[in-house]
Amino acid sequence: MTAGRFITFEGLDGTGKTTQVRAVAEALRDRGLEVATTREPGGTPLGERLREILLGDDGITRDAELLLLFAARAEHVETSIRPALERGAWVLCDRFTDASYAYQGGGRGIPSARIAVLETWVQGALRPDMTIFLDLSVETSLARIAGSLFREASDRFEREHFEFFSRVRQAYLERCRRHPDRYLQIDAGLEPREVTRVIVQALIGTLAPAPTKDHCRPSGADDR
Amino acid sequence: MTAGRFITFEGLDGTGKTTQVRAVAEALRDRGLEVATTREPGGTPLGERLREILLGDDGITRDAELLLLFAARAEHVETSIRPALERGAWVLCDRFTDASYAYQGGGRGIPSARIAVLETWVQGALRPDMTIFLDLSVETSLARIAGSLFREASDRFEREHFEFFSRVRQAYLERCRRHPDRYLQIDAGLEPREVTRVIVQALIGTLAPAPTKDHCRPSGADDR
Repeated sequence: MTAGRFITFEGLDGTGKTTQVRAVAEALRDRGLEVATTREPGGTPLGERLREILLGDDGITRDAELLLLFAARAEHVETSIRPALERGAWVLCDRFTDASYAYQGGGRGIPSARIAVLETWVQGALRPDMTIFLDLSVETSLARIAGSLFREASDRFEREHFEFFSRVRQAYLERCRRHPDRYLQIDAGLEPREVTRVIVQALIGTLAPAPTKDHCRPSGADDR
Repeated sequence: MTAGRFITFEGLDGTGKTTQVRAVAEALRDRGLEVATTREPGGTPLGERLREILLGDDGITRDAELLLLFAARAEHVETSIRPALERGAWVLCDRFTDASYAYQGGGRGIPSARIAVLETWVQGALRPDMTIFLDLSVETSLARIAGSLFREASDRFEREHFEFFSRVRQAYLERCRRHPDRYLQIDAGLEPREVTRVIVQALIGTLAPAPTKDHCRPSGADDR
């Protein structure tokens, strides 16, 4: 049993996941909660090395790619996510296993049942308490990526063609439909502060115990 | 269905696997067979990169290590081993999945049933036609490694303690006992040429079709 909360952020590139992880973490910390933020692939020294391989190479077979992602995930879960959850932290993770279902499943065509085998092999019973899906049309997502000054030149995943990202988005939407209890689907075209407000409200309403401190702070403190 | 033969070489470091792969390949080629030699971890550009991570780092969790090995294996099977088998080659591989059962199973304590899940996930029905287990006591194996002028400074696996290698050897022996049809256990303390002779004889006797050319060459040509 874990004492913390495990919250994952999913969506295409350009939907503002990184911004939202940061903003939601700040809002939760303002409520006195311990928050740990992390990302996949990455989050550990091994994960960061594998991230370089995954985002840089063109020639990896799809099964090898999926196994590398789960290798990084195994390390991440054991050395970082589980310990944080066990000490009671709220763990906000920028992409997790839903991304494997969307990108390697929907995008590259690996059957969900094959992905599920590895999910259980690596995670046991661990699943996110809530998954925030930031949804945006593929056109808008790609336009945001192309227009950003702060992103590096397109990596392997971002070079993939439009149809690929359409399949990825459809896979995400399908998972939202099938697990409505766990997913919070949000229009990522909204103002970022509004997106943050909706997420924090949902998290606190669904997952939070009574605030442990600062419970007298004025409402709306998360609206900055 | 594959037209070739898949032969793997297993054993502790220092048992002469690399030497035997080379010598057996030469002897089979002398019989007119197409032979491909390869090794694990490695055998592909991705595999060689992962090999560096696997042999260099100290801090990888055991599950992540096993998944990395299977990621390399997935790439290796799909891009190298299966294509060679399909065109009819005899593939000689320096370590394969039995090494995962021995090192990550026997050595590090991952249950065999967990390894079997990944074996089937990655390989489907592909299993070696024959596995050559070069057996040597742990003491002799370690002494050979320490005495060799041609090996680099001990890598991570070789730094592991004596008890670890004892568990690895026991796991190999146990697999030989359980699958006597597939395993050829050989005393690696014999003269290398004698070891080669025994292996080639077993392979030809068990797996070979009639020689396709050079069938008039004098017997004993593999005894060089």
